Amino acid sequence: MNKISKAVVTRLPRYYRYLDELRQQNVERISSKELSKLMNVTASQIRQDLNNFGGFGQQGYGYNVQYLYDEIGKLLGLDVKHKMIIVGAGNLGQAIANYGNFRNRGFEIAALFDKNPDLIGKKTAHGQILDIADIYDYVKKHNVEIVALTLPKGPAKRIAQKLVECGVKAFWNFAHTDLSFSDDIIVENVHLSESLMKLTYRISEKNDSKE
Amino acid sequence: MNKISKAVVTRLPRYYRYLDELRQQNVERISSKELSKLMNVTASQIRQDLNNFGGFGQQGYGYNVQYLYDEIGKLLGLDVKHKMIIVGAGNLGQAIANYGNFRNRGFEIAALFDKNPDLIGKKTAHGQILDIADIYDYVKKHNVEIVALTLPKGPAKRIAQKLVECGVKAFWNFAHTDLSFSDDIIVENVHLSESLMKLTYRISEKNDSKE
Repeated sequence: MNKISKAVVTRLPRYYRYLDELRQQNVERISSKELSKLMNVTASQIRQDLNNFGGFGQQGYGYNVQYLYDEIGKLLGLDVKHKMIIVGAGNLGQAIANYGNFRNRGFEIAALFDKNPDLIGKKTAHGQILDIADIYDYVKKHNVEIVALTLPKGPAKRIAQKLVECGVKAFWNFAHTDLSFSDDIIVENVHLSESLMKLTYRISEKNDSKE
Repeated sequence: MNKISKAVVTRLPRYYRYLDELRQQNVERISSKELSKLMNVTASQIRQDLNNFGGFGQQGYGYNVQYLYDEIGKLLGLDVKHKMIIVGAGNLGQAIANYGNFRNRGFEIAALFDKNPDLIGKKTAHGQILDIADIYDYVKKHNVEIVALTLPKGPAKRIAQKLVECGVKAFWNFAHTDLSFSDDIIVENVHLSESLMKLTYRISEKNDSKE
């Protein structure tokens, strides 16, 4: 398979979401035109994107929903189990732990960690919240692939650095800071306040254009 | 001011975050070269981006941190107060309500709403959680600018549609669905599972390249 452009990869999860909905509605086939209407992108964009993987579509016949769903799932690495731990068991950490969609897609939340004595020992759907002091031993012992960082930026950097030394290779980073490691370490950032600023920018842009 | 490209706008919140940190460390001036090292982007990228706003930098003198911070803040619409309500007062809604950075940046969380009787009436830092049944009257009465949707995708679409009819113009959408309204309505999506899929894609891409 050829290397897929970053722009296409960014769009794949959205295809995956729509195909999942179609699949659940027992839709077996869909044309690029129908999918285009549903997803509000051009049919040619869809054909171009899906051509990257080759052989999914057939002229005048449409895409096989389940097949395309499975193949995109494989490309996204969702056909293998990913073991994830969550560091920071506050509201955000717990929200992520309980996010239903994750559980059905090969993600195993192995444990939540926190330093707050009021939270440590608290029962969740993924076992008791563990003491952050034990996290380094835990990741060395278990095959933890992804660490979600849902804690303040101060400790996030320091803890992430130590986790890398313990062998962690991928972070899903909600902390309000950039983590910089070697290219070997994967970091996917979710900076919520930056997303909100994009929203306020668009609001002020709209208000300016009215003046 | 000229229209700023979408790519630059996407980068502005990150500049804003770094400038905020510098400001808090009492740094008065910074050169594009120093900022470049700190932010891990090229100095020419920084000069190009910041040239968009004109007149911030001065050759051999650097940028005035506080001035640049204020000006970018204005561009991002952070110099005016934004009234936001949160629909869905579960873990994610409460996490957002308590996100400290928002409070300091002109965002007023006016209220949280939920349909869960166990949550309604519960005290938060932003008053008691209100009954979702009262939300439409609430937004008509108060000048609500932004609605954060932190609820499942099923009700999200229906409730957002009714909120638009009540005059809401901007959504910060965490629900696992796309909202499609006229161009008049601003929607900023945070699809957490899509972000996680980008991460697993990068993991499987890395594993493939090792084989």
